[in-house]
Amino acid sequence: MADGYPQEQRDAVYRVIAERRDVRQGFRPDPVPPDVLGRVLAAAHQAPSVGFSQPWDFIVITDRARRERVAALAGRHRDAFAADLPGARARAFDRLKIESILDTPVNIAVSCDRTRGGRHTLGRATQPRTADFSSVLAVANLWLAARAEGLGVGWVSFFDERELAAELGLPAHVEVIAYLCVGFVDQFAPEPELATAGWARRRPLSWVVHAEEFGRRAMPGEEPVDQLADVLAAIVPPDAEVLAAARERQDRDRKSVV
Amino acid sequence: MADGYPQEQRDAVYRVIAERRDVRQGFRPDPVPPDVLGRVLAAAHQAPSVGFSQPWDFIVITDRARRERVAALAGRHRDAFAADLPGARARAFDRLKIESILDTPVNIAVSCDRTRGGRHTLGRATQPRTADFSSVLAVANLWLAARAEGLGVGWVSFFDERELAAELGLPAHVEVIAYLCVGFVDQFAPEPELATAGWARRRPLSWVVHAEEFGRRAMPGEEPVDQLADVLAAIVPPDAEVLAAARERQDRDRKSVV
Repeated sequence: MADGYPQEQRDAVYRVIAERRDVRQGFRPDPVPPDVLGRVLAAAHQAPSVGFSQPWDFIVITDRARRERVAALAGRHRDAFAADLPGARARAFDRLKIESILDTPVNIAVSCDRTRGGRHTLGRATQPRTADFSSVLAVANLWLAARAEGLGVGWVSFFDERELAAELGLPAHVEVIAYLCVGFVDQFAPEPELATAGWARRRPLSWVVHAEEFGRRAMPGEEPVDQLADVLAAIVPPDAEVLAAARERQDRDRKSVV
Repeated sequence: MADGYPQEQRDAVYRVIAERRDVRQGFRPDPVPPDVLGRVLAAAHQAPSVGFSQPWDFIVITDRARRERVAALAGRHRDAFAADLPGARARAFDRLKIESILDTPVNIAVSCDRTRGGRHTLGRATQPRTADFSSVLAVANLWLAARAEGLGVGWVSFFDERELAAELGLPAHVEVIAYLCVGFVDQFAPEPELATAGWARRRPLSWVVHAEEFGRRAMPGEEPVDQLADVLAAIVPPDAEVLAAARERQDRDRKSVV
């Protein structure tokens, strides 16, 4: 039987998975050496793909003028999203930095050519979107390799896909799957920025593992629990500390409106 | 500036990326210990997600009767694909094993709930498919962690998504993104099975890295080359050895038809 990796290598794999972050601030302008970037792209290129079709391309963007045009495209969609938010969410959103297109020395667009590999690509015939998924798997490899190299990566999705494709000169049949801002960083945050900012919370693992069918929650080796009972048990009354913090935030928001 | 990982940890990250395989044969029936499966699922749960929405669920299937029903669903789509192939491709396909639903002790379905995180999930408003992409990123983590643990993973996409969702009891708004066959293996192949079988070939990295815009191929730090000139240079006349092998295959195929 094939062995797993030695403990210290397994630890490294789990470490990079745990410490990878979607970085949106604290990037440094230092250029990324070509050999480092080459290794990260080579890792991306080793991703799994449907029928081994390898449908991805990587467009490496460093030109300032082009990045300014891309940032303008993202800015319009950011503003449209902001305008659509209810009051409290809009104020929270104002405090978030959502992209670093101009703060990073390198941007990488990852695309997908759904025709690659020809008509009879194994598995894609039944589910065409598996081509897109293959390019996403390339992003995953890129992101983890970058973390191991000390490079931060932030995925920006505030785009109209065709607008961005036109800016990057993509042929009509090729789609942009991801737009990544890449650069060295001062530090990697211990927790996702959106969690720290209070925008979203990490869900417990036990909520997302089901045995045999959806709704029968059970971690491996444990007895299934009823999902509804589990949710009800997790609801606790807010304590005094949480209430006080909420009131303070409310006061601050009121003042900043005045 | 945040450092990259020490060399031996970086090596472990690149090792797991290079050695991960889409495994379709050589699985062993040995059960997967709950703690190993728990670690692999925890790795998946640490994937990046749009607006930190964590839209995935993991349905862990071990029940034989259910796996038989799932295998029957895949079998129908496999047969439909086979029937649609031209002669030579059909014969090559016949030699491929495309799923190990019944040969693996554990199957894991990874789903996506596009409503998770509420209406104002950051980034998803502009590109709804980024929710699906998040679940794909969870698959990527799962796959790499599994490899480090010595577990093979094979992704099966020969499904009608709604048929499979019904079999797994998914609510109407939740989609199946991936169906994975998981188990210990005799060995991990040095190259992807589809490459070894001659079904598809690995593309050179230099074909998929572009500078500033699509079509200007250039590895980082190198001068861009014209894509057309590059392709023409790669076309070489078949040599005698290749021709002889092709003739031999043809003869064999002719005999097997008789």
